[in-house]
Amino acid sequence: MTQETSPPSFAGWADVAPLLVDVAAGRRPADRVVRGGAWVNVHTREVLAGHDIAITAGRIAFVAPNASHCIGDRTDVIEAEGRYMIPGLCDGHMHIESGMLTPAEFARAVIPQGTTSMFTDPHEIANVLGLEGVRMMHDEALMQPINIFTQMPSCAPSAPGMETTGFEISAADVAEAMTWPGIIGLGEMMNFPGVSNADPQMLAEIAATQRAGKTVGGHYASPDLGPAFAAYVAGGPADDHEGTCEADAVARMRLGMRSMIRLGSAWYDVQSQITAITEKGLDPRNMILCTDDSHSGTIVNDGHMNRVVRHAIECGCEPLVALQMATINTATHFGLEREIGSLTPGRRADVILTSDLNALPIEVVIARGEVVARDGICLADCPHYDWPAEACATVNMARDLTAADFHIAAPEGANAVTANVIGVVENQAPTQALKFELPVTEGRVQATGEVAQIALVERHRATGGVVNGFVSGFGYE
Amino acid sequence: MTQETSPPSFAGWADVAPLLVDVAAGRRPADRVVRGGAWVNVHTREVLAGHDIAITAGRIAFVAPNASHCIGDRTDVIEAEGRYMIPGLCDGHMHIESGMLTPAEFARAVIPQGTTSMFTDPHEIANVLGLEGVRMMHDEALMQPINIFTQMPSCAPSAPGMETTGFEISAADVAEAMTWPGIIGLGEMMNFPGVSNADPQMLAEIAATQRAGKTVGGHYASPDLGPAFAAYVAGGPADDHEGTCEADAVARMRLGMRSMIRLGSAWYDVQSQITAITEKGLDPRNMILCTDDSHSGTIVNDGHMNRVVRHAIECGCEPLVALQMATINTATHFGLEREIGSLTPGRRADVILTSDLNALPIEVVIARGEVVARDGICLADCPHYDWPAEACATVNMARDLTAADFHIAAPEGANAVTANVIGVVENQAPTQALKFELPVTEGRVQATGEVAQIALVERHRATGGVVNGFVSGFGYE
Repeated sequence: MTQETSPPSFAGWADVAPLLVDVAAGRRPADRVVRGGAWVNVHTREVLAGHDIAITAGRIAFVAPNASHCIGDRTDVIEAEGRYMIPGLCDGHMHIESGMLTPAEFARAVIPQGTTSMFTDPHEIANVLGLEGVRMMHDEALMQPINIFTQMPSCAPSAPGMETTGFEISAADVAEAMTWPGIIGLGEMMNFPGVSNADPQMLAEIAATQRAGKTVGGHYASPDLGPAFAAYVAGGPADDHEGTCEADAVARMRLGMRSMIRLGSAWYDVQSQITAITEKGLDPRNMILCTDDSHSGTIVNDGHMNRVVRHAIECGCEPLVALQMATINTATHFGLEREIGSLTPGRRADVILTSDLNALPIEVVIARGEVVARDGICLADCPHYDWPAEACATVNMARDLTAADFHIAAPEGANAVTANVIGVVENQAPTQALKFELPVTEGRVQATGEVAQIALVERHRATGGVVNGFVSGFGYE
Repeated sequence: MTQETSPPSFAGWADVAPLLVDVAAGRRPADRVVRGGAWVNVHTREVLAGHDIAITAGRIAFVAPNASHCIGDRTDVIEAEGRYMIPGLCDGHMHIESGMLTPAEFARAVIPQGTTSMFTDPHEIANVLGLEGVRMMHDEALMQPINIFTQMPSCAPSAPGMETTGFEISAADVAEAMTWPGIIGLGEMMNFPGVSNADPQMLAEIAATQRAGKTVGGHYASPDLGPAFAAYVAGGPADDHEGTCEADAVARMRLGMRSMIRLGSAWYDVQSQITAITEKGLDPRNMILCTDDSHSGTIVNDGHMNRVVRHAIECGCEPLVALQMATINTATHFGLEREIGSLTPGRRADVILTSDLNALPIEVVIARGEVVARDGICLADCPHYDWPAEACATVNMARDLTAADFHIAAPEGANAVTANVIGVVENQAPTQALKFELPVTEGRVQATGEVAQIALVERHRATGGVVNGFVSGFGYE
C-alpha cells in the first residue's frame, strides 16, 4: 500500500510516474545515475554486483546492470566504484526530543549516519504544548530533506492521575491528527493496563487510528505474557519495543505484532532478543530495529541506525537480515513498502554507499535523489520551523527556587533514617525499589556514597511543587 | 495496516475491540473456542502443538495453550483433536467469471476447499455491463460469508481498438470505484505496452488507485525483461502473475513487485517459478500463490487454493512456506495483514482444521467465526444478489445465425489453401502463429485433422459480425 504521506514539497509516485516510465524506457534522461555498485536487494535478500540506479524527480526510475540509456548530457553520474548500495536506514520508533534537539537539528545529526526515515512520536512536547506542539514538530518534520513520519502521541500524560502536565491528549485530538499529512499512526500506547482493561479513551484512540488505516504503536512494559498481554494485543497495538528477552520477542511475533528491538543511548535490548532469529530460526520479517531514545552525544560519537544495524550484526545476525530489519521490514509495517525501504522503481531515492556490509561505514548518503552527506559531513539544508515565542518559553515557575526547596527534613532528633531509594539498572527501563540507611545532618537527610538526590520540579502550572527523592545506580561514589 | 473494507454486515476490529479485549482477559466468554490444535503460525513460520483459539464477534480474541478462561456456558467448543489449525486460504488474483458462476455460487464451491479470501477482478462482466456490472459483482461479493475483495477492472477492453465490447472502463470509472467499500485495488493492468509507453489513461487509472492507498495489480505478459519491463514496473503495478519461468519470478521480486504464481485450470506456472525459493533460496515473502482462472469442474474435482498449496509442496516447497504464500504474504500485499491471513488476535476468524500439512485435507472450515464447511460439505448460506433482468439478457444479436455465417470461402477454383492457424500450447497463455495446408470442398476451406474451426461472434452491439478462424492444439484427431 502506498500511503499518501508525501510532504507537500515532494511529489508522489502517482504524480511523477510519467517521468519515471520515460526514464526507464530511455526516452528521457535521468537526473542522476549511481553507477557500478553492488545492489543490496532487501526484497530477495541478495547482493547483486555491477548495477546502476537511475533517479529522477527524487525517485528511483530504473535499476539494472546498465543504465546508460538513462544518461543524458545533464545527468549527474555518481560512481559507486563497486561499493554496496543499500537503502537509506529507517528508525522504526523514536523520540526526537530525547536528542535534546528540534527535528531539523536531529535530521542534520543523523543524515551523515545514513538515517533517511524516522518514525517519531513527539510525546514529550505533547506534555508541554499539547496538540499544538505536536503540530509544530510535525510541520518541521515535513520540511526536512529526509522522511520524518510522525506518530501521534497516545498517552500524554503517560500515567494519568499521577502527573501534572501542561496539556493532555484526548481521543478527539488523536482523531484530528489522523487527517494531517505527516501522521503515520498512533504513538506508543503506554497505558497498557488501560488497554487490557478496555479503557474507553485508550480504545477510542486506537479505533480512530485503525479507521484511518494507520498503524497503532505499542508499548507493553511488563514481563507478564499471560492473558493481560493477550488482551493488550487484542486491543489493537501492532508493534512493541519494550521486550527485553527472547521470550518477549517471540510472544509478540507469534501474536501477529512486529517486535521492535532497540539500541538507544540507554536501551540495550537487541542482543537478548535477536536470538529469536539467529538461534531459534523464526521468520525475520516481523522484527524491526529502532533506537527509541538517542542522546545527541550518542549520535555524534557512535552513530544512529547504522550503530544499531552494526550491533545486530555483531550479535550474530546476517548482514542482509539486519539490513532488512532497518529497511523493508519497517516500511512494510507502516504501509510504506512502495514508498521507502528498498532500492526499486518508484520508491524515494534514499541510497547509501558503503564499502563494508559489516562495519557499515556511511560514505555517501542520497535522500530523495539528492546527495545529503559525504564522509560524515551533512551537505543538506535542514530548515527550521518558525517556532513561536510561546513555544520557547514554556517553563512556568511563578517563583525562583532556593536551596531550601531541596532540603529533605528528617524526623525530629533522628541521626539517621531508612530511606526509599530508586534503584536504576544500567541499560534497562525498569527500576528497583531499594532502601538505604542515610545520615542526618542539621535535621536534613544527606545523600551519600552511591546514593544521589533527585528532584522533580513542577514547571507547567506554577504550583511551586518540588518533590525530592533519592536514586542510586549511576555509579557515583 | 487495517483496510476499512469490512462488509457492512461485519464489524471491524475497531468496533469490536472492547469485546475482544474482554474475552482475552477472561471477563467475558467467547462465542466459540477451537480447542487443542496445532497452531500453524505464519508470522514466525512455526507449528505450535496444543493451542486453543477463542473467537468472538467473528474475530480471534485469544490464542494460547489454554483458553479455558474464555469458555462460558454458551461457548461453542470445537475439539481440534490435535489437528493443524491453519489460516483460511487466500487466492491472490482470480476471476470469478472463469468458473462460469456468480460470486455466491463460486463461494459455495470453494468454501469446502478452504478458500476464505479471494481477490477477484470482474473484468469479464466489465466488458459486458461496464461499471454497473462491476458494482453488481462487488455487491454480491460483499454479501458472502467469506471475504471477496474486488479489484476494479483496469482494461476493458483488454486490447483497445481491436475489440467491440459492450462497455469500456474509463479512468473516471476507476476513480469512482476506489470509493466503494469492497474495492481493494486495481485489477490486472493488462495494457503493458500502454504503461511502458506512458499512456495517459493507463497511468491515470494507476494514479487513482495509488492515491486511494490501494494496490495496483499487474499483468506483464512478455518474456522481455529489459527496459520495457522496467518501464512497466516504474509505472506502478505492484504484482504480476504472468511469469512462466524462474527468471520471470526473480526479476519481479528484485524490482519490488510481488510475484504471483498460478495454478489454474489451464495455467501451470508454479513448478517453473517456485525454484526461485526452493533452489535459488530467495526470501519467500514476496511470492504469492493464486489460481487466476478456475473452471468449476476443476474446483469440484481437484480443489481450489488447497490444490495450489498442495501442488507447491509437491514441487518441493516447505509446507509452512507454501502456506505463507497463500495466507500472510497475500494479506500483506493488499494491506490486510491485520485483517486476514493469520490466526492471531483481531483478525477475522478464518480457520481450517486439517490432519495433514502435505496432503491438506480440508476437514473443517470456519469463516468469520462460523463453521461454514465440514468434510467437503458447504454449510453456509451464500446469498444471491437480486440481479436485474437486463443483467441476464445481454446477448444482443439482432438476428439468428445460420450455417452460412461459419463458411470460410476459399479463393476461386482453389483445391487447397495455406491457412493461418492459432497454435494453442497446453497450460500456457501465449499461442503460436502456425500455417497449415487445408483442403477446400465446395469452395469452402475445411478444418481437418488436428485443426478445428473457431468463430468469434459479436454479441454486444448487434453488428452481425462473425469472424472465423482455425485453431490447433486441443488434441483433436
